[in-house]
Amino acid sequence: MSLSGKQIAEHNSRESCWVIVHGKAYDVTEFLPEHPGGSKIILKYAGKDATEEFEPIHPPDTLDKYLDKSKHLGPVDMGTVAKVEKAESPEEKERQARIARMPILEQCYNLMDFESVAKRVMKQTAWAYYSSGADDEITMRENHTAFHKIWFRPRVLIDVEKIDFSTTMLGTKVDMPFYVTATALGKLGHPEGEVVLTRAAKKHNVVQMIPTLASCSFDEIMDAAEGDQVQWLQLYVNKDREITKKIVQHAEKRGCKGLFITVDAPQLGRREKDMRTKFNDVGSNVQSGSQTDTSQGAARAISSFIDPGLSWKDIPWFRSITKMPIILKGVQRVEDVIRAVEVGVQGVVLSNHGGRQLDFARSGIEVLAEVMPVLRERGWDNRLEVFIDGGVRRATDIIKALCLGAKGVGIGRPFLYAMSAYGQPGVERAMQLLKDEMEMNMRLIGCSSIDQLNPSLVDTRALSMHAANVPTDNLGQFVYDPLVVPKEKSML
Amino acid sequence: MSLSGKQIAEHNSRESCWVIVHGKAYDVTEFLPEHPGGSKIILKYAGKDATEEFEPIHPPDTLDKYLDKSKHLGPVDMGTVAKVEKAESPEEKERQARIARMPILEQCYNLMDFESVAKRVMKQTAWAYYSSGADDEITMRENHTAFHKIWFRPRVLIDVEKIDFSTTMLGTKVDMPFYVTATALGKLGHPEGEVVLTRAAKKHNVVQMIPTLASCSFDEIMDAAEGDQVQWLQLYVNKDREITKKIVQHAEKRGCKGLFITVDAPQLGRREKDMRTKFNDVGSNVQSGSQTDTSQGAARAISSFIDPGLSWKDIPWFRSITKMPIILKGVQRVEDVIRAVEVGVQGVVLSNHGGRQLDFARSGIEVLAEVMPVLRERGWDNRLEVFIDGGVRRATDIIKALCLGAKGVGIGRPFLYAMSAYGQPGVERAMQLLKDEMEMNMRLIGCSSIDQLNPSLVDTRALSMHAANVPTDNLGQFVYDPLVVPKEKSML
Amino acid sequence: MSLSGKQIAEHNSRESCWVIVHGKAYDVTEFLPEHPGGSKIILKYAGKDATEEFEPIHPPDTLDKYLDKSKHLGPVDMGTVAKVEKAESPEEKERQARIARMPILEQCYNLMDFESVAKRVMKQTAWAYYSSGADDEITMRENHTAFHKIWFRPRVLIDVEKIDFSTTMLGTKVDMPFYVTATALGKLGHPEGEVVLTRAAKKHNVVQMIPTLASCSFDEIMDAAEGDQVQWLQLYVNKDREITKKIVQHAEKRGCKGLFITVDAPQLGRREKDMRTKFNDVGSNVQSGSQTDTSQGAARAISSFIDPGLSWKDIPWFRSITKMPIILKGVQRVEDVIRAVEVGVQGVVLSNHGGRQLDFARSGIEVLAEVMPVLRERGWDNRLEVFIDGGVRRATDIIKALCLGAKGVGIGRPFLYAMSAYGQPGVERAMQLLKDEMEMNMRLIGCSSIDQLNPSLVDTRALSMHAANVPTDNLGQFVYDPLVVPKEKSML
Amino acid sequence: MSLSGKQIAEHNSRESCWVIVHGKAYDVTEFLPEHPGGSKIILKYAGKDATEEFEPIHPPDTLDKYLDKSKHLGPVDMGTVAKVEKAESPEEKERQARIARMPILEQCYNLMDFESVAKRVMKQTAWAYYSSGADDEITMRENHTAFHKIWFRPRVLIDVEKIDFSTTMLGTKVDMPFYVTATALGKLGHPEGEVVLTRAAKKHNVVQMIPTLASCSFDEIMDAAEGDQVQWLQLYVNKDREITKKIVQHAEKRGCKGLFITVDAPQLGRREKDMRTKFNDVGSNVQSGSQTDTSQGAARAISSFIDPGLSWKDIPWFRSITKMPIILKGVQRVEDVIRAVEVGVQGVVLSNHGGRQLDFARSGIEVLAEVMPVLRERGWDNRLEVFIDGGVRRATDIIKALCLGAKGVGIGRPFLYAMSAYGQPGVERAMQLLKDEMEMNMRLIGCSSIDQLNPSLVDTRALSMHAANVPTDNLGQFVYDPLVVPKEKSML
Repeated sequence: MSLSGKQIAEHNSRESCWVIVHGKAYDVTEFLPEHPGGSKIILKYAGKDATEEFEPIHPPDTLDKYLDKSKHLGPVDMGTVAKVEKAESPEEKERQARIARMPILEQCYNLMDFESVAKRVMKQTAWAYYSSGADDEITMRENHTAFHKIWFRPRVLIDVEKIDFSTTMLGTKVDMPFYVTATALGKLGHPEGEVVLTRAAKKHNVVQMIPTLASCSFDEIMDAAEGDQVQWLQLYVNKDREITKKIVQHAEKRGCKGLFITVDAPQLGRREKDMRTKFNDVGSNVQSGSQTDTSQGAARAISSFIDPGLSWKDIPWFRSITKMPIILKGVQRVEDVIRAVEVGVQGVVLSNHGGRQLDFARSGIEVLAEVMPVLRERGWDNRLEVFIDGGVRRATDIIKALCLGAKGVGIGRPFLYAMSAYGQPGVERAMQLLKDEMEMNMRLIGCSSIDQLNPSLVDTRALSMHAANVPTDNLGQFVYDPLVVPKEKSML
Repeated sequence: MSLSGKQIAEHNSRESCWVIVHGKAYDVTEFLPEHPGGSKIILKYAGKDATEEFEPIHPPDTLDKYLDKSKHLGPVDMGTVAKVEKAESPEEKERQARIARMPILEQCYNLMDFESVAKRVMKQTAWAYYSSGADDEITMRENHTAFHKIWFRPRVLIDVEKIDFSTTMLGTKVDMPFYVTATALGKLGHPEGEVVLTRAAKKHNVVQMIPTLASCSFDEIMDAAEGDQVQWLQLYVNKDREITKKIVQHAEKRGCKGLFITVDAPQLGRREKDMRTKFNDVGSNVQSGSQTDTSQGAARAISSFIDPGLSWKDIPWFRSITKMPIILKGVQRVEDVIRAVEVGVQGVVLSNHGGRQLDFARSGIEVLAEVMPVLRERGWDNRLEVFIDGGVRRATDIIKALCLGAKGVGIGRPFLYAMSAYGQPGVERAMQLLKDEMEMNMRLIGCSSIDQLNPSLVDTRALSMHAANVPTDNLGQFVYDPLVVPKEKSML
Repeated sequence: MSLSGKQIAEHNSRESCWVIVHGKAYDVTEFLPEHPGGSKIILKYAGKDATEEFEPIHPPDTLDKYLDKSKHLGPVDMGTVAKVEKAESPEEKERQARIARMPILEQCYNLMDFESVAKRVMKQTAWAYYSSGADDEITMRENHTAFHKIWFRPRVLIDVEKIDFSTTMLGTKVDMPFYVTATALGKLGHPEGEVVLTRAAKKHNVVQMIPTLASCSFDEIMDAAEGDQVQWLQLYVNKDREITKKIVQHAEKRGCKGLFITVDAPQLGRREKDMRTKFNDVGSNVQSGSQTDTSQGAARAISSFIDPGLSWKDIPWFRSITKMPIILKGVQRVEDVIRAVEVGVQGVVLSNHGGRQLDFARSGIEVLAEVMPVLRERGWDNRLEVFIDGGVRRATDIIKALCLGAKGVGIGRPFLYAMSAYGQPGVERAMQLLKDEMEMNMRLIGCSSIDQLNPSLVDTRALSMHAANVPTDNLGQFVYDPLVVPKEKSML
Repeated sequence: MSLSGKQIAEHNSRESCWVIVHGKAYDVTEFLPEHPGGSKIILKYAGKDATEEFEPIHPPDTLDKYLDKSKHLGPVDMGTVAKVEKAESPEEKERQARIARMPILEQCYNLMDFESVAKRVMKQTAWAYYSSGADDEITMRENHTAFHKIWFRPRVLIDVEKIDFSTTMLGTKVDMPFYVTATALGKLGHPEGEVVLTRAAKKHNVVQMIPTLASCSFDEIMDAAEGDQVQWLQLYVNKDREITKKIVQHAEKRGCKGLFITVDAPQLGRREKDMRTKFNDVGSNVQSGSQTDTSQGAARAISSFIDPGLSWKDIPWFRSITKMPIILKGVQRVEDVIRAVEVGVQGVVLSNHGGRQLDFARSGIEVLAEVMPVLRERGWDNRLEVFIDGGVRRATDIIKALCLGAKGVGIGRPFLYAMSAYGQPGVERAMQLLKDEMEMNMRLIGCSSIDQLNPSLVDTRALSMHAANVPTDNLGQFVYDPLVVPKEKSML
């Protein structure tokens, strides 16, 4: 027999707190203090239906995994649950109007276009979570800008009729030298979440890296793969190593072909744009100021399990629990790449976590330019595969990374934006545009295959220039009278 | 006997497609799949008069050359052809109003002024085709900016009463050290097309390079030359070498004095600004999204014949079919200049195709500064003539290039803009302004003739600095309270 | 018996000038020519109540100290004093409206936020005094910008579960490696003045440096300290060394633990923003232009006693009058740090006085990077403690300074702004935010304690780049047609 | 007997052209073709009173000197001359309104302030003439910007109680290390012209350099000097050396103490802002386009006599005709400074003519940093005095130049702007402000006299960085969502 809305509504306090998720009731009273996102956000829905809030930030198996079966109260007769009348806010109305006017997909000609559209059509909180970076977002922007400091030295008069930019990563043959890197909370952008990316990756034969903090469950994402489609696992290491072990070995059993251990996030970042949106949240009473620490944005809410004690001495243990190649994701200096070789892992991702962790961390492409000459000097450049991610928006960015010695590049946000704005067709078009650009630019740089890319094709002299914007002389700028083009005749 | 409009109008489908061009009817049914610009654009005019669309992007001899005579259906009685009523769009009305207010020619004081006027008075599609560059247009802008990294070290107290800035290029005596470089589709800017440039070049005694993709036919442009006026041929190499041979030998016979083989365009560029204008095109139904690949802007439409397989091994063949000096246009690194000397060509143009091909290709002037010291060290600086193009807007730009060792510079877009805005008088004034600037600046740098220009007159230390705009600290900028000049008294 | 308002009002001229301060009357006729801020400002209040103007820029014991007791005329019956009707200005009304709309404290997520709020809610004159810098304020902005030229080289896979960022400065154990540096005129920002900072410093266990030019008296600030709270004394050296001696020995007796002698201000700066506000001052008649020299902003008004003759030969004398450690505040080049070691002081603050003195002085962080390698080379890095101040806004700024060898950093304006906007809770939150950032960023850089910070963790190659904004090509910028993202559909 | 207006009015054509200047009539029919500014501008006033146009750009003795006495027709009865009713243009009305609202002089706190005011209150043509530079005005702006690349390394704890910044230039003792450099057409800015500067220079005991192209006559300017006031002569060398000789020897006889021969202007610059104002000129019919060459702005109109043939071989001749020290003004590279020493002149001014001649000429301060080390290495630094001009706006600019080895700096435009806005009191205040800044900054850099200034006090590492603004990634900038400060509460 189902529970009624009225019954649930009676348990609406810290003393007895029931919530409805996907038509079922749960008693979360005892769980309140343990909730990584704080008790307040749950109490907001005490006695009510929390599905809409719950959905995008918890994989569907969350309650099964973390809430004792005794607290599963069974199905609710949803017809008896009071509907919350949500007046559509003016902001939401404007957003709906923007959605109605959205450009058609064919009007997007490059990866930036998707970001531009997504910014206009996504919910503010979702946009804030995806687009935010650490502190002043200086590293986040540097990631893309760094590519602009590298210029080409193209070859001419090379036969480039046939272009082949397929390559292999960790033994997998892929059509293009990039992979879909792991990003959290896919359902913030699209109701189906990460499986959208899985299907698009299949279409273009590139690898998808599955995030620990996915909105879909790991198995859903694996199930969405077809045929011999290859996936990797991104791992945040749990303080409880048994949980980690279970996750890793399950992934291996399901067929994952690489284990990417995140090493740049002992604590998830302070992203102020994300934090600020909390104050716009309907019904938020955080403004009282009494409990600010529990409201630090989505990133903090979902990451309290991550072990800040993870260290080099844990690596052998990982090697003991899996046969998957192990790649350290988030290495940021040559000394650590050398150490990675020494501890015997199969690869590193030079990455600063998309500019979401430490502001003023250098870009992956810059670290790459520091790392590869040292590896080559030692003859170690074949002892591990080096990937980078962060700021990749153009095929020229990819080509630059490969010229400098990367095996492939990870792309994250652009595909999230394409998915958020246009769903799977959006992601597919984003990949197709990269393909078009790749073909064109491989030709223009004078290379018909990936193995021809080499450092002599790029000029990186500016790459280490970190000069920030320098102080401006406001007085001088104000009084300066700039040249203007001729005025129109009627102005005379 | 002429065909009637009604007869033509019956053949308005993919199954039977007739079109009128310049008062004659053609059966293009079988040609549809072969059309480099795609069949869709032709079908739009099936059964109708296509002259206005056809004109600017096809030389007049196109149909004779590429459509079998059996498909030439003969003259049409144009009085019987239904006139298409084209309502003038609001954008077009605004443009006409801007044309009415155009500054008079004498108000243009430099080459930028023409660009400014042209931008306001040209049709959007024409402006997009001329002004667009590859990807983010970073190389396009770098081309001009690069000159700004070079500063002068002028000499004083040199007798500069008489200034002579004539020089020779490939044996031809010219009045100024620049030439009109090849640019496609002149009729987009002016109904008469490239011959306007021919006449202006004659007036100022400079060389014109004739483009393969001209709107006028090659012979029309040759015919427009007067007396001993010198012209060169720019060549896109056709996959069918017989066609190429015919073009080259015809040009030589007609008196062309130089063969400039384009080597930086195995495939014509993705120029997004150009691509975007397609969606504004009257009657375009590309928005359905079904056939986007056939609508990639004017550049793609006209260039499918170009051979991406062209390579160094083809050069001896060119030397075997012509006695014209051969110059490789689009060389971009010193290694390839050395190879050019070794294969025995007479010159190179250091160029990135006006920033229209590979974004992040370096500017011609920067490559020049890399090339010349190497050539001089080998004693090879007299074994070929080195030209540059891209971004030249001021006489100081020309002087900088010559100081560094260029024999001359090519100028393209500025003359197109002058022509589009003011016709032949515009081009002539543009050249005259360069002449005025040359005279002034030769004096101010302390040189009375071209042979006195040398590297000691320039400071190029900044030329290799590629630092892109660096990340800005938005918070800091927002809160900073800038100094202001004193408020006016009434404000107190 | 009290004096009446009428009696006072009769003495309203240069010949006989009485003023009321805090309910007591004073005869300042003879003092007029000696007033450091000029006689004009006193005459404005001749015969009237000057308390509101007097309060923020004079410590309460000023009149006792500097005006002979015979001029203390005794209490005034304030009921008999004519109230000055001050019409609220439109600017003040707008300011009050802004105060009413102020964000709540919890909406401030970083130190910049306080500055942003303070700018909107502070009185114009107070804001101008706090926020102004020398000349074009180029050094002031450089102070913060300089940190942006330093990038991190973080370590990964270090156990950072427990983070300890406590350290010691001049023997005092502190919770965080910063101190509240000395800033003048605290009551401009908050009615209680510097004691607000004292209390907040106690809460977070950091040191406060007491300014010579405080609004509160020295003893008030000492009295506000609790328990073993540590304070230092910032000293402007008086031309009359006896006064200086008295101040120093009094401070030592009261328990001050460090003597910071300001050496970068032989004369206080010209701060034009501060100077300009004088013209907005209610009742100011400086506009007559007759006496401009006496109206050079608050800085000049309060600093005429400072001795521009202070020199290295004075240092032994200071060592003879106190046992407190002596630190030179405002050292700006390595040669002077070496000399500081040689004369035997205990520390230096590399500082340019918050950009308020010499424009184009380099930032403390840049001088630090110049100083430490030289000290290390001589093995002198432990012979004195090196501090820096200026531009610190983020925990990453602090960490960068410590990586380069600083013992701690001083923070001034940000706490003033937090205090001005939100009082003591504001200052406490500002410190808490730094604490949150410190914890996060220590983890992300891979260090669990202060002593692990070292130069290999930062990339300072850009630090000495002083390139100013370079000339812009206005014509080129004007005519350039930038790429745009796709227009919305309704725009077609 | 006086001529009547009617009589004059009859001679209003190219065939017979009379004009009135200062109440006297002149027959200029034969002079028309010789007028350096073209005949058109005279014909505009044929038969009329030309005084207002004539006045600012011709010294009063012009007609006596250049027009044969036989053409002097004698006094005119001005009451009979038809008054020209000039309707006040809307622009002029706005300008008058801006003048009425002008800030009072005491509100100007630095040299930029005068420029800001002048821009608002000067006539457009006068502003254009004073403020314009060559081509894109890049050198003009670089002149000031270059100082921003130099930072200080100040000394502390130096006794700076007494500051003495007097020095000597060419043997003359001056109160401050700058001089008023020569600038043309003073009456465009102020009805009295250059004598205003003479009187202000006297007041502050600095040297004035008298321009060849003054609005006042040379003797008027000499006569305005008082006591032992020192003046120098700036010389444009006439094609007719006899005229030059007469000018030089007359100047020496009148007491000039230095001969500054301009060597950077064989032809006066193309200043487009100046040229453009011609089209706004009341009554200008240049728009017909028929005679554009005669309308190239004020600079061209007044300079046709200058000899572009002037060269090093002329220097001995100058030494033979005068005992005044000879200084070459406008030297721009170290090679030419060496040659200057070798030909035995007494000094050089490193200058690019205020950015009015060759665009991309380097700044004087940069050339200084190139020159002095070479001179010192040869032990030649005392064999001539080195001055610079261009871009000096702050005392810190002056101090930087002196640290690097300049004997003094020339200041031009700032005094013109001060004069144009506020007359002599403006110029005096401008000089006083520099004095205030000098005193302050000498103290802050730790120097009590000019001879203590030396290269160790400045950091010039950035001085040779010429990187221009680099291409911007427009797409990236457009889509980037910047951090914002917290929204105000009412916005929630």
